[in-house]
Amino acid sequence: MAGAVFQTFEEKASPAQGAPHLAALRKELKVRGLDGFIVPRTDEHQNEYVPASSERLMWLTGFAGSWGVAIVLSDKAAIFVDGRYTVQVREQVDVSLFTPEHLIDHPPEQWIRQTVKAGATIGFDPWLHTHDGIKKLEEACVAVGAKLVPVETNPIDAVWTDRPALPLAPVTLHKPAYAGEDASEKLARIRAKLVETQSDAVVVTDAHAVAWIFNIRGGDVGHTPLPLGFAIIPREGKPELFMDGRKFSNTVRDALSDLADISEPQALDTALDRLGTNASRVRFDAATASTRLVRRIEQAGGKTELGVDFIALMKAVKNKAEIAGSRAAHIRDGAAMTKFLAWFDREAIKEQLTEIDAAVRLEECRRETGVLKDVSFPSIAGAGPNAAIPHYKVSSASNRRIEKGIFLIDSGGQYEDGTTDITRTIAVGPATAEMKDRFTRVLQGHIAIATAVFSKGTTGAQIDAFARKPLWDAGLDFDHGTGHGIGSYLSVHEGPQRIAKTGVTPLEAGMMLSNEPGYYKAGHWGIRIENLLLVEPRIIEGAERQMLGFETLSYTPIDLNLVEPSLLTVIERAWLNAYHAKTRALLSPLLDQETQAWLEHATREI
Amino acid sequence: MAGAVFQTFEEKASPAQGAPHLAALRKELKVRGLDGFIVPRTDEHQNEYVPASSERLMWLTGFAGSWGVAIVLSDKAAIFVDGRYTVQVREQVDVSLFTPEHLIDHPPEQWIRQTVKAGATIGFDPWLHTHDGIKKLEEACVAVGAKLVPVETNPIDAVWTDRPALPLAPVTLHKPAYAGEDASEKLARIRAKLVETQSDAVVVTDAHAVAWIFNIRGGDVGHTPLPLGFAIIPREGKPELFMDGRKFSNTVRDALSDLADISEPQALDTALDRLGTNASRVRFDAATASTRLVRRIEQAGGKTELGVDFIALMKAVKNKAEIAGSRAAHIRDGAAMTKFLAWFDREAIKEQLTEIDAAVRLEECRRETGVLKDVSFPSIAGAGPNAAIPHYKVSSASNRRIEKGIFLIDSGGQYEDGTTDITRTIAVGPATAEMKDRFTRVLQGHIAIATAVFSKGTTGAQIDAFARKPLWDAGLDFDHGTGHGIGSYLSVHEGPQRIAKTGVTPLEAGMMLSNEPGYYKAGHWGIRIENLLLVEPRIIEGAERQMLGFETLSYTPIDLNLVEPSLLTVIERAWLNAYHAKTRALLSPLLDQETQAWLEHATREI
Repeated sequence: MAGAVFQTFEEKASPAQGAPHLAALRKELKVRGLDGFIVPRTDEHQNEYVPASSERLMWLTGFAGSWGVAIVLSDKAAIFVDGRYTVQVREQVDVSLFTPEHLIDHPPEQWIRQTVKAGATIGFDPWLHTHDGIKKLEEACVAVGAKLVPVETNPIDAVWTDRPALPLAPVTLHKPAYAGEDASEKLARIRAKLVETQSDAVVVTDAHAVAWIFNIRGGDVGHTPLPLGFAIIPREGKPELFMDGRKFSNTVRDALSDLADISEPQALDTALDRLGTNASRVRFDAATASTRLVRRIEQAGGKTELGVDFIALMKAVKNKAEIAGSRAAHIRDGAAMTKFLAWFDREAIKEQLTEIDAAVRLEECRRETGVLKDVSFPSIAGAGPNAAIPHYKVSSASNRRIEKGIFLIDSGGQYEDGTTDITRTIAVGPATAEMKDRFTRVLQGHIAIATAVFSKGTTGAQIDAFARKPLWDAGLDFDHGTGHGIGSYLSVHEGPQRIAKTGVTPLEAGMMLSNEPGYYKAGHWGIRIENLLLVEPRIIEGAERQMLGFETLSYTPIDLNLVEPSLLTVIERAWLNAYHAKTRALLSPLLDQETQAWLEHATREI
Repeated sequence: MAGAVFQTFEEKASPAQGAPHLAALRKELKVRGLDGFIVPRTDEHQNEYVPASSERLMWLTGFAGSWGVAIVLSDKAAIFVDGRYTVQVREQVDVSLFTPEHLIDHPPEQWIRQTVKAGATIGFDPWLHTHDGIKKLEEACVAVGAKLVPVETNPIDAVWTDRPALPLAPVTLHKPAYAGEDASEKLARIRAKLVETQSDAVVVTDAHAVAWIFNIRGGDVGHTPLPLGFAIIPREGKPELFMDGRKFSNTVRDALSDLADISEPQALDTALDRLGTNASRVRFDAATASTRLVRRIEQAGGKTELGVDFIALMKAVKNKAEIAGSRAAHIRDGAAMTKFLAWFDREAIKEQLTEIDAAVRLEECRRETGVLKDVSFPSIAGAGPNAAIPHYKVSSASNRRIEKGIFLIDSGGQYEDGTTDITRTIAVGPATAEMKDRFTRVLQGHIAIATAVFSKGTTGAQIDAFARKPLWDAGLDFDHGTGHGIGSYLSVHEGPQRIAKTGVTPLEAGMMLSNEPGYYKAGHWGIRIENLLLVEPRIIEGAERQMLGFETLSYTPIDLNLVEPSLLTVIERAWLNAYHAKTRALLSPLLDQETQAWLEHATREI
């Protein structure tokens, strides 16, 4: 049982693979009469976590980040990444082959305009691009007199000799006690929406939405219990589910057959053609629908409507069972976190632990609950300067020894009753005044979000600044959103709600979000404090509006060695003391005596 | 000199005009073989303030709001308005003829789907709809098997017998001392942008942008010194300005001829066709470009690019001369406001004044500066329950006597050196505890915005909640944005920056915005406190980021009779006292002795 089961720390790729793979791809492109090809990191569902068989960008370049796109021409190639990955791309990719470009400052469409020659034919895999996303690139090609053409099969797959097989993890039924709503009820809600929008059908392209609708889970991608598949839900008639039959036991198949006709993924085309031939009005989620599917309907004579995914919004609002499940998962997870922290407190001061040791021990503590299904993402376990990289992923190569200073660990668990995601920052040895000042400001921002009350209709963008104000007051900030949505035993990142500049969705009771302000001193150390939140109605005497607020779901001590109490207001101090008192009360019954004693001290009143 | 010169208080329309005008339009539609027609309130530039000749929606329905759209079929008609106008539409429109619909809850495209019959041909004036805006309506028509077709000439114009002539106000040159940047320099910046976006030309459809680029002003619409016209700025070669020649004196024409070829508006088509024939890549502002112009280019073979208006962003960032001008205009305007408030304080308590009396007296005070060009919009002068209507416009019919309670006045002036916009809420007689509580919370929100510091890149949406927090804490809110952009001797509402849920533009040093939180007790009274702000760099010791903050531009006393000092923090009280001290210091030299004495008391330290 010792060691990590759900996480590996080896580098899966190296810059050295760029040269042979790029040469092989170029050869294949020549055979196909293409002057170039576009290689995004996504899969057919625009997933954040993709199966190994879809890691084409990593195979080609060595880049292992969660978002990126390469463009390969016969004599030039570039890789585009966002601000998170500008350092990492230079470590993982042979930049003499792939010029690194900044996605925002010098986007692909601009690069195409400056680089692609008139008369060139550039290919793209229409399964891997959204309908709107490919338009910009098409326009750029047209502008220089080149053509952007969809390919029937991906040329990388033709030359990727050891490409992993498509995943076939068994599909399981998500228990009614955790799901809280029958699939038939969800289907009825979706059909009602189709009546409202006067659509004939919706093609469900987000595999998470498919899993949510049919109350099924799987294991086709890392750390998310996600079965890959598509569905078509008509306004009238039986839904169709497109999923590889080998993933179903007889029991699962029987249960699903009552709800939908089950077909192989290859049958999707026939179904789309049928919708098209009937001149149906077909709705798509603009964010996850590939242009391949949209074009197929249109070519068959159907009408397509791309818009916001209303199923995502239904999924985002958790029901009573999901909320109860999440609360239970968080108490269990908080006890595991506390065991880890007590151990870390004893061991780290010896300066012998590494980041991987800590990530492994934390996974063990979670597995000791007996019900952990997976970690919800690879732990971000950063010591010293590695803590200053918000999206750091520890590997054997990057692994640092934990010395006196700051250690940051961002992790989560997948339990059948809920998905968790929590970050704690811990002082190893005495903290400096600067560390305490920064940590306390981050904590003040965290408390401002946790205690916020706001009227119905308020978006996540509107409250984002509450988390930043204590930092702004000192001329500081952090370069990521304050919070993201989270799934119920599903993806650790879920939309559409978020607390960030881009959070245009009004927050609704039942939504779950993270609350994770931070501060990063590049090259030195970093701080982040993350709990999960539930949006809930808030009763205020004399209120004229429907008001909302947050219930904090995560319970784990916040390191008091990093708090400067004199900076806290009376209200902030009261919040911290109450949070710690509740943490103690909830977790103590689940802990051994030694950890109880540690928790007692860690949650002392200040 | 007494009385109002720039404002009128008569109703310009009545519900009674609906019946004959609707009948006339339907007859005309029949002649043209149309089964329906769409009547938006906008003009060819998507202006907020339109010339009288473009008030087609008002002519047809009686509705006088700033935004709305009617759809007329042979047997049914509907008028769509947003939340601001749901009450007003029922007062101004014969609802037995035009069914009032809520723009968001039951939008036109949905109404079309439910109402328009297969085979119907619906007309629209392509000059009055944006390219993207008409798409939804087209899709809705297609969905029901109907056709939406552009008309060559607007059928309303054919039956509107007393339609006012197109405006021909003289064009003036905006003085270099106020403009601060030569038109040639602005044109160079625009050309550099066209090089960056690799466009061959931009068609400037926002008349405010045309005015800004060429440093000209006019008077074609109410309260905004706006000359209506279009421009084409090519990446290379001489710009073209399309404006009625009768608006130019010889001097103005000579000055403009150095910068651009001047043509009649009718010549625009020829120029667009030329761009199209050359297969040019032509850029448009998606928010103001009519589909008429976009289609013309495309039909002639050109490529169109609709996007965010980069000229609006240039215009939004004020230069040193514009900032200096605005500061001067605000001090002058603050003195006028103070004269008005001192007078109001003496007179209102007698309970003999009406809302119109107050609006007239305020305009007189502004005119007494000797340099007022116009009011910047019709004053919102609301007593009692009228103050609870955020967009109230006083008319002879709605005019109320000002009794003890609350009076709200939102107004502004157009001066050559700057445009002002300010709201003050005044207690007439003693204020109730509830009024004081609400006013103080609004003031706290106002102060939170005025004193905010935030890092470069922060959007208006992110700081919007600072203004709402004191209200949210009591279960209250207000249903409008916290702040809008403002022009330099141009429109009182200017984008793209705003402090609101929809404020996605990062704030930049040099931008100007209003700061106007409010609270409205429907049917009773309302509160709003508005000053204008300038975004400016903010130096913080030890800062790691480029930080921004606000300079408050407006100086006029805030009614201390409505402040509950015990609710204010030490910092908030200090802000109020410092604001009043500066108001006194800046304005006293401009005031007569009696007003000085009044100001002394009105700005006393609390």
